[in-house]
Amino acid sequence: MNTKTEEARIRALIDDWVDAIVRRDVPRILALYTADVESFDAIGPLRIRGSEAWAAHWRMCMEQCPASLQFRVQDVHVEADGNVGFARFLMQCSGTMPDGTTHSGWMRCTAGYRCEDGQWRIAHDHCSAPFDPETNKALVDLQP
Amino acid sequence: MNTKTEEARIRALIDDWVDAIVRRDVPRILALYTADVESFDAIGPLRIRGSEAWAAHWRMCMEQCPASLQFRVQDVHVEADGNVGFARFLMQCSGTMPDGTTHSGWMRCTAGYRCEDGQWRIAHDHCSAPFDPETNKALVDLQP
Repeated sequence: MNTKTEEARIRALIDDWVDAIVRRDVPRILALYTADVESFDAIGPLRIRGSEAWAAHWRMCMEQCPASLQFRVQDVHVEADGNVGFARFLMQCSGTMPDGTTHSGWMRCTAGYRCEDGQWRIAHDHCSAPFDPETNKALVDLQP
Repeated sequence: MNTKTEEARIRALIDDWVDAIVRRDVPRILALYTADVESFDAIGPLRIRGSEAWAAHWRMCMEQCPASLQFRVQDVHVEADGNVGFARFLMQCSGTMPDGTTHSGWMRCTAGYRCEDGQWRIAHDHCSAPFDPETNKALVDLQP
């Protein structure tokens, strides 16, 4: 077990995850997660438990943003030991709606990884935008 | 190295963290984090890097909510191996303002842990509320 090698494998998993999202390939996205995944997404609900609910959430996200979807990650930090790891990074999400308008914003993402049968998978992830406690508005225009 | 023992030690660290917050003890809170901590908090900014900035953020939070602050965690899930671990849990935050009004809401929290010199510390944490993409409003009234 070389910790640096495992961290590199988790970085490759993050790259695969971004590529699967941009290609809108929900089965490929889901194959990167453990069966018992529980996720905290930037948009409601509070949490999403298990592969089936997570797949439905991804399909809904893809439908809400059908024309184009781009994800870019920055400042990726990974730590891993044995069969457990975590990462944090920033993620710029950009989407073009059917009417041509484009939305873009920076999110924060944290993930927990588990190596099962020699394969690293996402056991948990958490994406969010912070909010302003005075107005309760999500701060989607912040820049790194 | 017994993984179950390490997971129990991380659960005890989460209990310590909640107790230090409720007691409004910023130095004790900070002692639970690594020096290179980077955190993604539920309220802005996008990220907070390093102990000094993180301490200033906690002091600001304590000042904004001076009369009473309660944190309760639920559904804690921990995974650890070697010197790395992560956890996810839900957290009910309640605060009473000087005018007597009380605010309460459920947040999602994810943390990454590192064991340094035999001591588990929080290397990263991420707390958030999801938002409604139609209105950009933080969904602070969701129930688990």
